[in-house]
Amino acid sequence: MQAQLQQRPYNFSAGPAALPAEVLETAAAEMLDWHGSGMSVMEMSHRGKEFISIYEQAESDLRELLAVPKDFHILFMQGGGLAENAIVPLNLSRGGKVDFVVTGAWSQKSAGEAKRYADVHIAASNEASGFTALPEPSNWQLRRDAAYVHLCSNETIHGVEFHEIPDLKALGSDAPLVIDFSSQQLSRPLDWSRVGLAFGGAQKNIGPAGLTLVFVRNNLLGHALQACPSAFNYQTVAQAQSMFNTPPTYGIYMAGLVFQWLKRFSYRGRNALAAIEQRNIDKAELLYSTLDGSGMFINRVAHNARSRMNVPFFLRDERLNDAFLADARERRLLQLKGHKSVGGMRASIYNAMPLEGVQALVDLMRDFEARHG
Amino acid sequence: MQAQLQQRPYNFSAGPAALPAEVLETAAAEMLDWHGSGMSVMEMSHRGKEFISIYEQAESDLRELLAVPKDFHILFMQGGGLAENAIVPLNLSRGGKVDFVVTGAWSQKSAGEAKRYADVHIAASNEASGFTALPEPSNWQLRRDAAYVHLCSNETIHGVEFHEIPDLKALGSDAPLVIDFSSQQLSRPLDWSRVGLAFGGAQKNIGPAGLTLVFVRNNLLGHALQACPSAFNYQTVAQAQSMFNTPPTYGIYMAGLVFQWLKRFSYRGRNALAAIEQRNIDKAELLYSTLDGSGMFINRVAHNARSRMNVPFFLRDERLNDAFLADARERRLLQLKGHKSVGGMRASIYNAMPLEGVQALVDLMRDFEARHG
Repeated sequence: MQAQLQQRPYNFSAGPAALPAEVLETAAAEMLDWHGSGMSVMEMSHRGKEFISIYEQAESDLRELLAVPKDFHILFMQGGGLAENAIVPLNLSRGGKVDFVVTGAWSQKSAGEAKRYADVHIAASNEASGFTALPEPSNWQLRRDAAYVHLCSNETIHGVEFHEIPDLKALGSDAPLVIDFSSQQLSRPLDWSRVGLAFGGAQKNIGPAGLTLVFVRNNLLGHALQACPSAFNYQTVAQAQSMFNTPPTYGIYMAGLVFQWLKRFSYRGRNALAAIEQRNIDKAELLYSTLDGSGMFINRVAHNARSRMNVPFFLRDERLNDAFLADARERRLLQLKGHKSVGGMRASIYNAMPLEGVQALVDLMRDFEARHG
Repeated sequence: MQAQLQQRPYNFSAGPAALPAEVLETAAAEMLDWHGSGMSVMEMSHRGKEFISIYEQAESDLRELLAVPKDFHILFMQGGGLAENAIVPLNLSRGGKVDFVVTGAWSQKSAGEAKRYADVHIAASNEASGFTALPEPSNWQLRRDAAYVHLCSNETIHGVEFHEIPDLKALGSDAPLVIDFSSQQLSRPLDWSRVGLAFGGAQKNIGPAGLTLVFVRNNLLGHALQACPSAFNYQTVAQAQSMFNTPPTYGIYMAGLVFQWLKRFSYRGRNALAAIEQRNIDKAELLYSTLDGSGMFINRVAHNARSRMNVPFFLRDERLNDAFLADARERRLLQLKGHKSVGGMRASIYNAMPLEGVQALVDLMRDFEARHG
């Protein structure tokens, strides 16, 4: 079996994204019979003792890995980040004012959707930079009476990441901070003292598409608008331990396997989340330093804003794009084409991507430059 | 492998529910490498050619199996039937009048949720019968100007099924009919000429929880309320071929495998949907005739309203409930406990349940009655 694992290609998809091979192996082995139950996890009642044990283990492992404080609920929901763009203001805005920090396509989309429910104000934007920098927090135009402030801590399309979550209190705001951390979650620790709510689709670092994670501080519940569907009312979902409606049970199971994998993960003397963060740093440094040392390839994001997870890059001569992608496929480096709104290439190097995968990409870039440069 | 399949228990869960063993076998075999792509289906971009081919095949197979007319969109969504209780009125009510036919827990819940968005009227209810009969259509109090009429074509909890979809036109109404057919879909043909919209969670006859199917006639699109989240706006989802947001890709893949299984299915000289319907009829007749012939077990639903999919039944002496469930577990007959709101037992005998499974249940009932009767 090990031989088979070694031969897997490196998959740079932005999401749904690569999963650890050993997680997939376990899922395959347990597909017809989970732990002697005689059932696939897909066939279990979500209220039966077998699935409840899977859910509770997953919730507890995630809480431990991310050091989620006791006053935060972890909700396992559906609809992805895009649905949360509506669900967050339905639950938190009270129909009042909400402030947005726009750093790329995702925060822009979030702001647009919130206008259905709230008075939306763009407190800061990096659009003038072509979404290649972070707006300086001291210049943000925050409103005193905003119900919350929204930012996207990692922009999957533009490759812009907040490496430190801003401290709204230090900026003179008492509003809770909402972060869309779809493509950042579980790649590094999070400072929960600066966050009121964090949400993200699972299909980056956690599991299959169709599962959404919402982490929400207890004191933000209970203010949903009348128009909020019951199935997306955070208080209702929290009170029912994410089983108000049938949750995406298989996605929760897969996420649980990923959490177990991450708890076992070690790297350069570190363990679990600290280990994966260090490997993510090393992967990003290897890729960005290669880009910066190249005359053929370029990444345009400001150094302090470069995402560890999503690295958009361009060939200075775009006529070579197809040749590069063809060479990549030949070396079994998959899904490197950039998002259609940005063009060029994008390497998404989430938790499941080993350092060897980035090394293989870097080797390709150097060889390609030697041949075509 | 055949030996392993033979040893699987019979799983009577109401949902998430049993899946065909050969579907699970295929999913296990393809888990690490779908058709030589080097990727699990979970790892594929939803916009890549591999997943698009999976999606298109699934959509086309489902359309063929259920004979879905061309003017209906098939939407692959998230949130289950419970979320649809809000999403339907958000899309179709125009904030006006909607009429509900209440035949059990699910239609009652749907009516309650719709009150957030519309003027809700209960046109008929069988609550007085304890949800054991169908209200006679000629007595329904339909409003001329209702935006739509909602009914649940099969009540999963109370085991009440419409064996014929009512013809609203014949009842003097021009309103489109909305049916919640979560636990009926794909168990039998549907008369689309009587339906404007049909929805259902996948976790009964189709695949894993987290995938919702919505079939909607083209001329009903385009009237969503301002409060409708973009991700749940049927027109938006239809225009994007269910990829406005990342769909639950693995659920769609599993559903596709189930559709393929159903297309190959044959029984008593019939094929595909006609075959599964005949087997469902035979299974239901075997179980209901045993219940009716018993002095110990009872099903209280009127004969013309008895569900082919969900059969709630009771021991006349409820002190024997635990002994019966223990005997069932010993014979590897799983998840027979009734819904907590109703008590007793419930046998859900969806498409994936073979006749042999119902025979094993019937054998247990006869043996149990012989020993305890």
